[in-house]
Amino acid sequence: MPRIESVDFYYCSMPEVLDIGDGSQDLLMVRLQAGEWVGWGECEASPLVSIASWVTPMSHSACKPVRDSVLGQQLDSVDDIRRIGTLVRANSMDLLQTDHTLSGVDIAMWDLLGKMHSEPVYKLLGYERQYPRTPYASVLFGDTPAETLEKAKRARAENFKAAKFGWGPYGLGSPETDAEHIAAAREGIGPDAHLLVDAGTVWKDDIDLARPRLAALKEFRATWLEEPFLSGALNAYATLAQEAAPVKMAGGEGSHNVHMAQHMIDYAGIGFVQIDAGRIGGITPSFDVATYARERGVTYVNHTFTSHLALAASLHPFAGSATDEICEYPTELKSLAWDVTKNHLARNADGQLLLNDEPGIGIEPDLQGAKKYLVDVEIRVGGKVLYQTPAI
Amino acid sequence: MPRIESVDFYYCSMPEVLDIGDGSQDLLMVRLQAGEWVGWGECEASPLVSIASWVTPMSHSACKPVRDSVLGQQLDSVDDIRRIGTLVRANSMDLLQTDHTLSGVDIAMWDLLGKMHSEPVYKLLGYERQYPRTPYASVLFGDTPAETLEKAKRARAENFKAAKFGWGPYGLGSPETDAEHIAAAREGIGPDAHLLVDAGTVWKDDIDLARPRLAALKEFRATWLEEPFLSGALNAYATLAQEAAPVKMAGGEGSHNVHMAQHMIDYAGIGFVQIDAGRIGGITPSFDVATYARERGVTYVNHTFTSHLALAASLHPFAGSATDEICEYPTELKSLAWDVTKNHLARNADGQLLLNDEPGIGIEPDLQGAKKYLVDVEIRVGGKVLYQTPAI
Repeated sequence: MPRIESVDFYYCSMPEVLDIGDGSQDLLMVRLQAGEWVGWGECEASPLVSIASWVTPMSHSACKPVRDSVLGQQLDSVDDIRRIGTLVRANSMDLLQTDHTLSGVDIAMWDLLGKMHSEPVYKLLGYERQYPRTPYASVLFGDTPAETLEKAKRARAENFKAAKFGWGPYGLGSPETDAEHIAAAREGIGPDAHLLVDAGTVWKDDIDLARPRLAALKEFRATWLEEPFLSGALNAYATLAQEAAPVKMAGGEGSHNVHMAQHMIDYAGIGFVQIDAGRIGGITPSFDVATYARERGVTYVNHTFTSHLALAASLHPFAGSATDEICEYPTELKSLAWDVTKNHLARNADGQLLLNDEPGIGIEPDLQGAKKYLVDVEIRVGGKVLYQTPAI
Repeated sequence: MPRIESVDFYYCSMPEVLDIGDGSQDLLMVRLQAGEWVGWGECEASPLVSIASWVTPMSHSACKPVRDSVLGQQLDSVDDIRRIGTLVRANSMDLLQTDHTLSGVDIAMWDLLGKMHSEPVYKLLGYERQYPRTPYASVLFGDTPAETLEKAKRARAENFKAAKFGWGPYGLGSPETDAEHIAAAREGIGPDAHLLVDAGTVWKDDIDLARPRLAALKEFRATWLEEPFLSGALNAYATLAQEAAPVKMAGGEGSHNVHMAQHMIDYAGIGFVQIDAGRIGGITPSFDVATYARERGVTYVNHTFTSHLALAASLHPFAGSATDEICEYPTELKSLAWDVTKNHLARNADGQLLLNDEPGIGIEPDLQGAKKYLVDVEIRVGGKVLYQTPAI
């Protein structure tokens, strides 16, 4: 009976992190070992804070370090992964960072289990086959509509059938300028591609700020408007969803447990639920949301902004669903996010994306590639070293 | 124009932290200085993890260390506090621990502002006067019904008109044993006192586990059943609320922003919303929830399990509400939680609780008292010391 003997965290960062909405500037890889097996995962999280939550002294029975519910646990079945996740959430319930930390651990457990049973993760999840995805190019809005046009043209030239434009100036200036960005994006990607727009929660929960942007989204046939509001603003979402039709609302990346995603499906009127396996607690809760969404006619989409290990981990949970067509595919990654894995997910001749049909997640970390980005961390409490960056 | 010049964190802990549901075994005090003024707050959080979130390197534009949105900010009005809170939540949106860390900072800002304007915080919040509260003794269930009976008798002997029994064995064993605990609690506190029961999320989201406990709660006239489920299990809450009447559901302590509390009010059918100012982001969001609840006929109650600084901070947000009668008042505090403040909130001859009518929160920290519990922490990243426990 293999037990989890060790878990190591590798905090990697670009030498300089810029103040822009690009999540690929640092990452936290997780190496998990049980018996002869090793699995890898990644947290989409603040690396230092997640490391601290792994080693922090216990505050009380429901505020324990995450490691207390992982190390030493038996791991040889899907039930084990579910049991460990439940244990972590109970024992570390009052430690807010927990779900982000658990995410990388859960992904590493699935990777390990897949290798142990010689199955890709999506098969362990119960899917018989995988369906190809239509990846969207995930790019930041340009500073000007002209820049947005150029970015959109590039996405089209690169054979993307869908493109998402997000963050940057959108939603902060005038509705007229925003409309010019939307027009430029549509012009650049062509009439038939999916045009996706990400407002990055810029209007908090203020419907009056969102409303003047709807006309352009309808005119240029956006498929979705993503995160007009903070994840919790369910009522604002529901109201805007009605006014925006046929443009659908998309959201959910901020969900750090299954319940939060369910609330957006149940109460916010979203048409697309976007889940980051690196934030919601891993592949297990992502799969549960995908199932819940499918039963309710809501389309599941991955949210991903870091390495191809994180990308593949975010695709397995809905790989076997025929109806969830689109997937996120970041195209402006920093070198770090590319260099930390040996293999990558490339689009096929049709511009579509499939997972590697290999055991586990199907992405192999490149430790030599990661080494040059490794950040040295040491945490001491009461004179004792609780954490030190492991050697690669 | 005073600006926030420094924020210091003091992580204090009992020498030994036990694996029990007692949140008073450690705490994280916050000292905030602006110009000649000093304010104090407290996070109800994992201290090390919150400290890490204060100093962590930036990951991207929406995942910054909390301090980046606090240090250097102007602070001389309520609007400043709101502005800083909004800034923190936007700049650290993807850093999950943020709200717990912000809590202590927000409380310290209110304490400082009260001292600056020579007003207790509840007056700065717009309340003209404060109303006395009926404190409930907050105790853990005994291991046996006989022990629970003794604890309940003690609460009655100490002149409590309300007592809450929580955690321990409740909900884990048979419904019959649970019923014996409830009967013992009622017998001990007497026929007229408020009997409050806290299930501590033990049934996760499983209504079938909760249902067999309802008969005893009705028979022995519990005022509320607290946290039968995880905070996010809104549908399970709503169903149980209907079946449990006239016993009401209570919950909300897990809320780490206003939206989450609103969801429980809007969708979970709760009769009491319990907010921990040390977790939801401080006094500001607590006050917003109190206002929202009052407009919807839901009773607001504080959640508190640490020092009297945290207790007072949790009472100000609803101090001026005549209708929210009950308040939590922990009675089994570890010495630490008592020793870190010079003054305390004591019940008056009627057994009721009032805030000190002094500027700010009205509780003065005892640094000499805290000193013996101070935990030494050092965090190094990339060879640089990002945090070191400040001297007292």
